[in-house]
Amino acid sequence: MFASTIRTIADYPKPGIQFRDITTLLKDRVAFNAMVDALALHYANVRLDKVAAIESRGFIIGAALASKLELGFVPVRKRGKLPAETVMQPYKLEYGEDALEIHVDAVTEGEQLLLVDDLIATGGTAMAAMTLVRRLGGVVEHAAFVVDLPALGGLQQLQSAGVKPFVLCQFDGH
Amino acid sequence: MFASTIRTIADYPKPGIQFRDITTLLKDRVAFNAMVDALALHYANVRLDKVAAIESRGFIIGAALASKLELGFVPVRKRGKLPAETVMQPYKLEYGEDALEIHVDAVTEGEQLLLVDDLIATGGTAMAAMTLVRRLGGVVEHAAFVVDLPALGGLQQLQSAGVKPFVLCQFDGH
Repeated sequence: MFASTIRTIADYPKPGIQFRDITTLLKDRVAFNAMVDALALHYANVRLDKVAAIESRGFIIGAALASKLELGFVPVRKRGKLPAETVMQPYKLEYGEDALEIHVDAVTEGEQLLLVDDLIATGGTAMAAMTLVRRLGGVVEHAAFVVDLPALGGLQQLQSAGVKPFVLCQFDGH
Repeated sequence: MFASTIRTIADYPKPGIQFRDITTLLKDRVAFNAMVDALALHYANVRLDKVAAIESRGFIIGAALASKLELGFVPVRKRGKLPAETVMQPYKLEYGEDALEIHVDAVTEGEQLLLVDDLIATGGTAMAAMTLVRRLGGVVEHAAFVVDLPALGGLQQLQSAGVKPFVLCQFDGH
């Protein structure tokens, strides 16, 4: 249902990659709002305090969902972007390494956080974000994504860490 | 009302700058949802089709507001981040220059777009985003911000271009 509103761009950002572009979903008011409603429905009866969303497309999905569920919102950002005291977690990219940060005062001990990003591939970014929240005493039992690339195994990574993932659509390949 | 939930960080990112950190507002579920409601109330009777929000803190405010108003969402991004065909608009920074981009298919002729960012300072970024939407035939009559720094004159810039700004709070200084 949602997959048909997502544009595939061949060989972006490099040859062999099929980039799944959600901007065609976002600009369509019916599709965008159906997406937020579908995610919100899934969590309607789950006790949650905050959404932790990953920069920067994850902010779009996560903020809309936090508003719909009337939760707080916590940005998980790339290294060097947050102005107050942070904790940092490195993660592997296909080539090289990067790091995510979260404010140390973003999460209170025992709070339930829903992890949100636009897409899950290998799960490296999501696992780093989950680790950051848990390092601050937050509980992460759920994670939501618009797109899953099942060939890359990200959902299994999360499940093995005790997180229940929910995705709206899946695409073959990388 | 909202100003008291925003943290000020002195001398960030450099000496003399008082950084207005909205993460303390966002993480507070009551404040975050009151903010979205206050913005949505202001536009309840305005004909709008889409929100155009500026990367990346603007995504948080803009996506929550687009969802609340049941509009489409268009990301305005830094140079080189969007995967399909774009138009680009340079803008001046305090030191140097940068550029914003928008997908050419993000806006249809005659659509009404609400411009959203977290903060307006000199207005350079907002003016560049407005210009991009207008270059694609979109109509920009309204712009919303959580924070305004009135000493820097951004609202006057927008007004002189025929855009009505709405802000939730103002802070002295830079």
